[in-house]
Amino acid sequence: MLLVMRPDATQAEIDHVLETISTNGLHADISVGKYRTIIGAVGNEEILVDVAFEAMPGVERLIPVMRPYKFVAKEVQPEGSTIKVGSALVGPGQLTLIAGPCSVETEEQALVSAHAVRDAGATILRGGAFKPRTSPYAFQGLGERGLDLLVECKRQTGLPVVTEVLDARDLERISEVADCLQIGARNMQNFLLLREVGMQQLPVLLKRGFCNTIEELLMSAEYIAKGGNDQIILCERGIRTFEPETRATLDFAALTVVKQLSHLPIVVDPSHAAGRADLVLRLSLGAVAAGADGLMIEVHPNPSQALSDGAQAMPLAEFEGFARHVALVRKAVQDIDR
Amino acid sequence: MLLVMRPDATQAEIDHVLETISTNGLHADISVGKYRTIIGAVGNEEILVDVAFEAMPGVERLIPVMRPYKFVAKEVQPEGSTIKVGSALVGPGQLTLIAGPCSVETEEQALVSAHAVRDAGATILRGGAFKPRTSPYAFQGLGERGLDLLVECKRQTGLPVVTEVLDARDLERISEVADCLQIGARNMQNFLLLREVGMQQLPVLLKRGFCNTIEELLMSAEYIAKGGNDQIILCERGIRTFEPETRATLDFAALTVVKQLSHLPIVVDPSHAAGRADLVLRLSLGAVAAGADGLMIEVHPNPSQALSDGAQAMPLAEFEGFARHVALVRKAVQDIDR
Amino acid sequence: MLLVMRPDATQAEIDHVLETISTNGLHADISVGKYRTIIGAVGNEEILVDVAFEAMPGVERLIPVMRPYKFVAKEVQPEGSTIKVGSALVGPGQLTLIAGPCSVETEEQALVSAHAVRDAGATILRGGAFKPRTSPYAFQGLGERGLDLLVECKRQTGLPVVTEVLDARDLERISEVADCLQIGARNMQNFLLLREVGMQQLPVLLKRGFCNTIEELLMSAEYIAKGGNDQIILCERGIRTFEPETRATLDFAALTVVKQLSHLPIVVDPSHAAGRADLVLRLSLGAVAAGADGLMIEVHPNPSQALSDGAQAMPLAEFEGFARHVALVRKAVQDIDR
Amino acid sequence: MLLVMRPDATQAEIDHVLETISTNGLHADISVGKYRTIIGAVGNEEILVDVAFEAMPGVERLIPVMRPYKFVAKEVQPEGSTIKVGSALVGPGQLTLIAGPCSVETEEQALVSAHAVRDAGATILRGGAFKPRTSPYAFQGLGERGLDLLVECKRQTGLPVVTEVLDARDLERISEVADCLQIGARNMQNFLLLREVGMQQLPVLLKRGFCNTIEELLMSAEYIAKGGNDQIILCERGIRTFEPETRATLDFAALTVVKQLSHLPIVVDPSHAAGRADLVLRLSLGAVAAGADGLMIEVHPNPSQALSDGAQAMPLAEFEGFARHVALVRKAVQDIDR
Repeated sequence: MLLVMRPDATQAEIDHVLETISTNGLHADISVGKYRTIIGAVGNEEILVDVAFEAMPGVERLIPVMRPYKFVAKEVQPEGSTIKVGSALVGPGQLTLIAGPCSVETEEQALVSAHAVRDAGATILRGGAFKPRTSPYAFQGLGERGLDLLVECKRQTGLPVVTEVLDARDLERISEVADCLQIGARNMQNFLLLREVGMQQLPVLLKRGFCNTIEELLMSAEYIAKGGNDQIILCERGIRTFEPETRATLDFAALTVVKQLSHLPIVVDPSHAAGRADLVLRLSLGAVAAGADGLMIEVHPNPSQALSDGAQAMPLAEFEGFARHVALVRKAVQDIDR
Repeated sequence: MLLVMRPDATQAEIDHVLETISTNGLHADISVGKYRTIIGAVGNEEILVDVAFEAMPGVERLIPVMRPYKFVAKEVQPEGSTIKVGSALVGPGQLTLIAGPCSVETEEQALVSAHAVRDAGATILRGGAFKPRTSPYAFQGLGERGLDLLVECKRQTGLPVVTEVLDARDLERISEVADCLQIGARNMQNFLLLREVGMQQLPVLLKRGFCNTIEELLMSAEYIAKGGNDQIILCERGIRTFEPETRATLDFAALTVVKQLSHLPIVVDPSHAAGRADLVLRLSLGAVAAGADGLMIEVHPNPSQALSDGAQAMPLAEFEGFARHVALVRKAVQDIDR
Repeated sequence: MLLVMRPDATQAEIDHVLETISTNGLHADISVGKYRTIIGAVGNEEILVDVAFEAMPGVERLIPVMRPYKFVAKEVQPEGSTIKVGSALVGPGQLTLIAGPCSVETEEQALVSAHAVRDAGATILRGGAFKPRTSPYAFQGLGERGLDLLVECKRQTGLPVVTEVLDARDLERISEVADCLQIGARNMQNFLLLREVGMQQLPVLLKRGFCNTIEELLMSAEYIAKGGNDQIILCERGIRTFEPETRATLDFAALTVVKQLSHLPIVVDPSHAAGRADLVLRLSLGAVAAGADGLMIEVHPNPSQALSDGAQAMPLAEFEGFARHVALVRKAVQDIDR
Repeated sequence: MLLVMRPDATQAEIDHVLETISTNGLHADISVGKYRTIIGAVGNEEILVDVAFEAMPGVERLIPVMRPYKFVAKEVQPEGSTIKVGSALVGPGQLTLIAGPCSVETEEQALVSAHAVRDAGATILRGGAFKPRTSPYAFQGLGERGLDLLVECKRQTGLPVVTEVLDARDLERISEVADCLQIGARNMQNFLLLREVGMQQLPVLLKRGFCNTIEELLMSAEYIAKGGNDQIILCERGIRTFEPETRATLDFAALTVVKQLSHLPIVVDPSHAAGRADLVLRLSLGAVAAGADGLMIEVHPNPSQALSDGAQAMPLAEFEGFARHVALVRKAVQDIDR
C-alpha cells in the first residue's frame, strides 16, 4: 500500500501515518521528493483494510499495491483449477458447453431442449426455475414445479444441471436437484447469499454483475471461497455501456485478465449479453478464440413462444450447427498456452 | 406497444403478429409505409409482457409506449406523496436531512453523532448495523449489537432511524428498531427482498443501483408497492461512469425525471456517490437546488478512525455549518413548482 | 512517478529501471517489500513522459504521482483566474449568464433572442454559425451569413459574442466577429485546433468531450495555455452513460474537482447535456449551487421552428423567469468559499 | 418516424403535427389508443431531419424508424464492399493484417518493422508521422521526416501504407505517400476533416470514437461517402467503460451489427483498445472468430524504447507466431456466412 501525502502535509501528519503503519505491525518506507512525500506500507496490506488512511489529515491518495484476494488468487493454483459439475469438467483444456432454456416452462419444452443440447455436445444443462425479473408483472419461473422438471431432464439425459438460486432459504431444496448453483448477475454482490453458497458442497457458477469490475467479481468469488467452497466457475455476461444496439457489451479482455489474476475458470454467456439471438454465434466463436473455458447458451424449441427472454434464445434446430462451429474454433486455439 | 416489421416481412408474418395482439384482447393498428410496416397494439400493454414478439419471424423491433409501472406512476398521486418516517416527513414542501454514521461502531460514536445531527437540524438518523462490503475481510457491521445502539440513540434523541436490511430473515428483528428500512444500491434488484419489504408496514428507502436506469429504479419500487407497501422513498446515489476522480457520478437530471414519472419522493446521497468528503457540501447544495426532497449524509466524530468509508464521512464538527448552507439554498428554491 | 515491479522481477530488471531514472536526471527511491519492490522516481516527472517504463521487463504498473499539467494547475494562480470576454467577466465572485440560440437562423430570430437575453441579465451572447452535426443531411449553420448576423446582434445589444470554431482556416474570419472562441465537445481533443487557438489573443471556451475525463479536459486546456493563451473558460456539458432518459449526465462533482486542480473558471451547459428543455431550469439551479462560475443556455423564440436542437431550447419567453431563479440561488451560495 | 403524443395532447396539437408532416410531402398515419395517440410519418424520413417535432406542444417522444444513412447502408451493396488499398484487399473473404509501429521513430526502427511484418504475412503497413497525443509534452510524431521514412518502407517492402491525417491542410502532402488515410478515434466526429477526405481518391480507414455509438460511426462514414469517396474501412478500437483493467472495452458485437447495417468492411485494433501488449493475441483471435475483416496491430522491435504507446506494442519477434495463430482461427471460421 502506498500513501501519497499532500504537498502541504506537516511532519506531524506524516508521523501519524508512519505510526499507524508501525502499530499495525507493518514496516513503513518513506520517500521524500521535491513535491511529495510517499509512504509505503511494506508487509501484509490486508491488516490495514479497516484503517481509514484517506481520512487522515495530510493524506492525498491511497494506492493499493497487492490484490485484495487470497483464496482465488492465481498463486494458489498457478496451472488453473478444474471444476467438476456432475460428470462434466470446466477448466484448462476443456471447452464446456452449457445450454438449455432460460426458464423451464413445460415438460415438453424442457425435455426436448435437454435431449437436443446433449445430442449436440452440451455437457451441462441450464434451466431456470426461479427467475429474477425486472418487472413484477413478468413470468417469475415455475418454482418448485420447475425443479421437478429439471429432475426429470437429468434422469432422462444424464446431464448435470445448473440452476439459479435467488434466496438462501431455497438452498436446501435446490441442492437436492442441482449439480451447480448459479448466482445471477444481479446477486453478484448479495454478500449474504455468497456466504451461504460458500458453505455448500456444490460448485457455484458466479456471474459478473453488469456494472461490476473484474476485481469486484474476484472479491465476490473470494466470499464464496473463504467459506470453504472453492469450486467456483466465473461467468462473463457483458457490462453496461452507452451503446444501445446490444443489451450489454461483452468484455473479452476480462477472459485473459481473469486468467492472469486467478486460478478459477471463466465461461461466457453471450445470450444475455447481446439480448439478441442473431449475435450469439459470432460472440460465442469470439469468446472461444479469446480464451473462454466454456459457453452458456440459451435455447428454445420455439423462441417466439418463450415466456422469458425469447429474443435472445437460439432456436433449438440451430444448436447442432452452432456446436460444430464452436468445435472448429476450439480446435484452432487449443495449442495456445500449452 | 409498437412493432416495427422488417422490410422483408411476409404477409403471413404480419398476420401472425396481428392475430397475437387480437388473441390477447388488444386492438391492432397497422400502418403500411413505403419501407416498413408498423403495427400498434392499442390497449393495456401489460397483458403482453410475456409475449416474445421480438422472437417472431418478421419482427425487427419492439417499442414500448407506456411506462411499465402502475402503483408508482405519477397519475396515482399527481401532487406527489409524502412519506412519514416516525415524526419526520419526506415529500413535497419538505427538505429532509437524514444523517449519521456509515456504521454504528461504538456507543460513544453513535450517541455523539446522533445528538449532533439532531441539534443541527437532521430529522432522521441513519446508521448501519449490517454492512454489505466488497471485501469479505472488511468490517461487516456490529449486527445485533449495532441495533441495540440504534435503539439507545432513538431513546436519547427522539430521532427516527433508517437502517439497511440485507437479509429477509433479519426483517422481523430490524423492524423492531427501525422506522424506515433501507434497501442498498447492491440490493436494488434483489427482487425477493423487495417483495418482502413490500409486505411490511414500515416505509422503505430504496437506493438506485449504481448501474441501474431510472426506469429500473421505478420497477423495483413497483415490486414493493405491488406488495401493498407504497411508503417508498427513492434515493439517487450516483451511477458508474468512466470518470475516475469520483466513485460514481450523481445523476441530477434523475431528480426531475423521477418527479415527472412518479409520485414518490427522492433524496440524494452525495457521500457514497463521491466517495470523498470534500465534495459533499457542493454536491448537496446542487442536489437541493436541482430538486431533491432530502439529503442523506454520512458523518463521523473522527473520520480517520472510522471502520468503514472514512474517506467520505463529513467530520461531525462541520455538520452544523453544512446544514446552514443547505437551508439557505432550500429557501432560494422553495417557491419553484408552486 | 511510482513503478511497481512484478513479484518475479530480477535484479537486472530492477537495475535497468533505476538506471533509466538516473540517466534522465531524477533520483530513484527503492522500497523492497516482502511481495513487491517499488521504485519511486523523485523529481520532475515530466522529463519521463516519453519513457516506456510499462514495456520494460519486470515492470508491473506505473503510477503517476504528479498531475501532468503546469500552466493550468491551481498553483499558478491559487485564487482562481478571471477571464474577460468583452465587457463580461467569468471567474470567482461572478455568475455569468451566457445565452442565445443554438444556431443563428434568421435576422429576426437572432436579434429578438439577443435583446431578450440581454434584458434578462445575460452578459454574453452565444450563437452558432458553423455547426458540427452528426448527420451530413442536417442543417450545418449559416456560415458567413451567420457571422454577419452576430455582428449585427453585437452592434445592437453591446453583448460580447461566443461562437464555435470548427476549422483553423476560419480562425481569422471568426476572430473579427467573436469575443470568445468556442471549442466544442467533439473537438476537445482536436489538438491541432487547440494549438491554433492557443496562438490567438481571444479567450477560449473549451467544452469537455462527452467521453473525456476531467484530467483530459485539463490537458486540452494545457495545449491552449502552452501556446501562450491562458484566457480559458472550461465548460462541463455532460458525459455519456447508460441512462437513456437524457442525452448525457452532467458531472456536478467535476465543478469542485476542477477548482481544486486548476485556476480556470468552469461554466455548465445544461441544454446540451439534457437534450430536453424541461430539465434545464433544475439542472441550472443545481449547477449554480454546486459551484459553477456561469451557465450557457440555449434559447429560441419558437423552439418548434428551430433548425437545430429545438428539443433542448428554452422558449425565450421563459428566460426572464429563469434568470430570476438563478439569481436567487446564486445569492444563497455566494458566501461559500470566501 | 413515429411521434408519440402526450396523454393530454389537444386536438389542435395533433393537427399541427399532422399538417407539418403533410406540408413536407409525407403521409401521416394516426393511431388513437386509449392512453396515447401515435402518429406515423410514412415516406422518406430524411426530409424531416430539420423539423423540431420534439419541441412541438403535445409531442412526448420521437422514434426514428429508418436508419439515417444511405450511401453506407447494407442495401447499397448487400454482398459487402471490398476496398483496395494498394495491392491489398479488405472485405468479404479476406482477413487483412495491418501492422507496424505506432509512430515512425527512426529509419532502422521503421524498416526493420516493415520487413518483419511483411515477411509474417501483413499486407498493409501502418505507421504514424503525425500523432495526436493527450499531453502537449509527449512526442508528437516526426511529421515530414516520418512521411519520408514511410516512403522508404514502401519502396523496400512494396507494402501499401496507412497513416493518420490530423489536419486537412496536410492532405495533399500525405496523399503523395499514403495508400489509405486514417481518421483516428478522436477525429471521428471532426466533420470538416471527414468532408475533405470524402473528396479524395484514396481509401479511408475510419476509427470508431471511444465514446461513439455504432450509428454515429456509420453517420461519420456517411459524411465521407456523401462526398463521393465510398472506399471506407471501419475500425473498432474499443469504447470507454468503467472497467479500469484495460484502456477501452472492445465491442465485438459491433462487428456483426455493422455487417447487418452496412456494406463496409470492419477491422479491429486490439492494441489501442487494450493498451497492454499481453492482451493483444487473445483479443485478436477473438476478433477474427467474431467476424472481423482484418486486424490492425502495433509492433515495435523494442517496445521499451518506443516513443509512444510502448506498453501496447507487440515485440516484433512475436509477430510471426501471432500471425500463425491468426491464420488458424481464420481458417476455422471461413466457411461461415457463405
